[in-house]
Amino acid sequence: MKRPLEASAEGRGRIVGITDGVFAIALTLIVLEIRVPAHETVHSEHDLLVAIAALAPRFLTYALSFLTLTIFWFGQQAQHGLIAKSDRRLATLNLCFLAFIALLPFSTDLLADFLEFRTAVLVYWLNLLMLGVTLFASWRYAEKNGFVAEDVDAETKRTVYLRIVKAQILWAIGALLCLATPLLSVGFILVVQLIYATALRGSLLRKIIG
Amino acid sequence: MKRPLEASAEGRGRIVGITDGVFAIALTLIVLEIRVPAHETVHSEHDLLVAIAALAPRFLTYALSFLTLTIFWFGQQAQHGLIAKSDRRLATLNLCFLAFIALLPFSTDLLADFLEFRTAVLVYWLNLLMLGVTLFASWRYAEKNGFVAEDVDAETKRTVYLRIVKAQILWAIGALLCLATPLLSVGFILVVQLIYATALRGSLLRKIIG
Amino acid sequence: MKRPLEASAEGRGRIVGITDGVFAIALTLIVLEIRVPAHETVHSEHDLLVAIAALAPRFLTYALSFLTLTIFWFGQQAQHGLIAKSDRRLATLNLCFLAFIALLPFSTDLLADFLEFRTAVLVYWLNLLMLGVTLFASWRYAEKNGFVAEDVDAETKRTVYLRIVKAQILWAIGALLCLATPLLSVGFILVVQLIYATALRGSLLRKIIG
Amino acid sequence: MKRPLEASAEGRGRIVGITDGVFAIALTLIVLEIRVPAHETVHSEHDLLVAIAALAPRFLTYALSFLTLTIFWFGQQAQHGLIAKSDRRLATLNLCFLAFIALLPFSTDLLADFLEFRTAVLVYWLNLLMLGVTLFASWRYAEKNGFVAEDVDAETKRTVYLRIVKAQILWAIGALLCLATPLLSVGFILVVQLIYATALRGSLLRKIIG
Repeated sequence: MKRPLEASAEGRGRIVGITDGVFAIALTLIVLEIRVPAHETVHSEHDLLVAIAALAPRFLTYALSFLTLTIFWFGQQAQHGLIAKSDRRLATLNLCFLAFIALLPFSTDLLADFLEFRTAVLVYWLNLLMLGVTLFASWRYAEKNGFVAEDVDAETKRTVYLRIVKAQILWAIGALLCLATPLLSVGFILVVQLIYATALRGSLLRKIIG
Repeated sequence: MKRPLEASAEGRGRIVGITDGVFAIALTLIVLEIRVPAHETVHSEHDLLVAIAALAPRFLTYALSFLTLTIFWFGQQAQHGLIAKSDRRLATLNLCFLAFIALLPFSTDLLADFLEFRTAVLVYWLNLLMLGVTLFASWRYAEKNGFVAEDVDAETKRTVYLRIVKAQILWAIGALLCLATPLLSVGFILVVQLIYATALRGSLLRKIIG
Repeated sequence: MKRPLEASAEGRGRIVGITDGVFAIALTLIVLEIRVPAHETVHSEHDLLVAIAALAPRFLTYALSFLTLTIFWFGQQAQHGLIAKSDRRLATLNLCFLAFIALLPFSTDLLADFLEFRTAVLVYWLNLLMLGVTLFASWRYAEKNGFVAEDVDAETKRTVYLRIVKAQILWAIGALLCLATPLLSVGFILVVQLIYATALRGSLLRKIIG
Repeated sequence: MKRPLEASAEGRGRIVGITDGVFAIALTLIVLEIRVPAHETVHSEHDLLVAIAALAPRFLTYALSFLTLTIFWFGQQAQHGLIAKSDRRLATLNLCFLAFIALLPFSTDLLADFLEFRTAVLVYWLNLLMLGVTLFASWRYAEKNGFVAEDVDAETKRTVYLRIVKAQILWAIGALLCLATPLLSVGFILVVQLIYATALRGSLLRKIIG
């Protein structure tokens, strides 16, 4: 007998649909912050070059948002690819994850505008932390309730947890560095994200991350 | 012979596509109302903390919008998962449902800005009511026209109706409470939504909701 | 041998994906024009009621945009459901159709703001016309190149053309009515769209439309 | 044994989902720059005609953005249709491609606003170049790692490279023309894009492009 919202492969497909939608919008919306210089302020090639150069921090923020979105798109996908079906609670956990994805452009903008303030770094880190927490919670829920695909072995299950925890430890270290200076903190987090996003094989840090 | 827009499984797939699209956009757009504080107004860590704290109502609104969207995403999905095919009229009913989903950010914003006014509560409730009406109408239409999957029994069919009606009764009670005071009204509705969204098992209210 | 961009079922699936995406965004973006009243201007329940009543034209515009988007979503789907595969040219025609769908919020806004001007009616009608032209062109292309599914008979093929042409004739009559007065023109178009969107069975006009 | 994020057909499907999402949003967002004239400035049919005529450059920009998005949507699709599965690195390359797609509305706006400046042409060309580079890199990666479908022959593989390179050579020539005058440069690029977008058969330039 078919019952509403019982764990199913269709429920799983719906999550994929809404997740890719939210990521696609987030990727596109962050660009909207990069605005074309006002025509009145530009009178020569040199003026235009200067105006575009002044947009550099915006492009950097864009790159940072992009990296972070990339990392978590793969994070969600890595998990989801191992899950055979989904029920309402697992979907809710995934929506919570998406709620924090939707907040990322805000946190990243805040960080870009207030690079010199610890508060901005902490808000950004909190966002990363909540993304990790929701990913961790949904994997745990999927595992406990037998939603993980049958051909996933114990080691792989453990690896999923480990990756989330390792990334969070690195980001926590990054956040702690802002006790010294916020810029060091941001630099450290950026390097971690760059390594994750590019998935460099064989690099030292990559080995530690696993 | 194939005829244009006859009831089909493909028509059903298109509805899923556009529904997940609208929900993904609604989830992301409501965040855009949370704006980074202006740089000129912030001169110290303390200033930034105060500025972020001042955004608290926006984060609350975001959480509320998110809860409501979650509830109706599952509401639509619960129904849709039991429907085997769709024709043009069922799709139109679903689009009407989506039109009221797209209005939710407006109603929620209005509520957040005018928490002390009955009118705001009533507009919000009207939006919830219309969402229930369109869901009820599409289930009724699907059932009458034999679009419900064959392995769905009579009890499940009745449960779908009951859930919509029960939720609407609770929200109507909530709306009536604004005769006493709007804040009580909003508090009641919030609690109902929280219970639905988290799908708490075994809670008393959950038992009543069914 | 597989060749890039040859006519395929996958190409057809991609068109569905991008079409539903554009429609989902169009449906959601038109709501953004409905703005919550400024808090400073509202001091009583009465003020709020008045402020919301003042938004009535916006809700009407929203309903109109929604109706039109509904009609063309079905128009595209009616055709697409009969097409078995798609090549690059058919996809380009579909993208042109989407380009005019994306323009609809602009035309509708223009109409709502300048109801009393013929120019606004003509721009709106031009948009409807171009939507019809692109739909007509893609059906013709699909038919000539054997992309229509095999189990579609000659009469159905003719019906698809006829529907597009009949709708365009009605809208053209509507546009001509603005020689008398623009409001009559808009009223006529609105009625036609309402009938199409609700797909009333047995109504007289419906019989004429076919 | 299933492992997280190993090369799979599902990973391929996710890329299609997020790609069509980004393109749908980009297509819709560029229209938002076309704004309805302010009601206060319009007092007669003539005023409205003038106001709409003043929007002509915006419609042109829209058409240009649309053409470019069309070309690269097909570019991505041509490649993707020949790829059987995808791993994390290939997905990352595709996301980089999408990051530059999301930047296209910015570059196009810049070009439209500063048609007379070489810097604007160069920024636009840089965007086109990066789109070509990411497409080239992902095809190379897919080929080296055996992700290309088995029924794709060597000539087709070479054709994919050739098309990217030929288009880039044409755009580079276009960019160089801005040494003479930026407008010539833009005109040349526009013609190239028009030919690609419409995929004119038998035209001379089309033969050179291959």
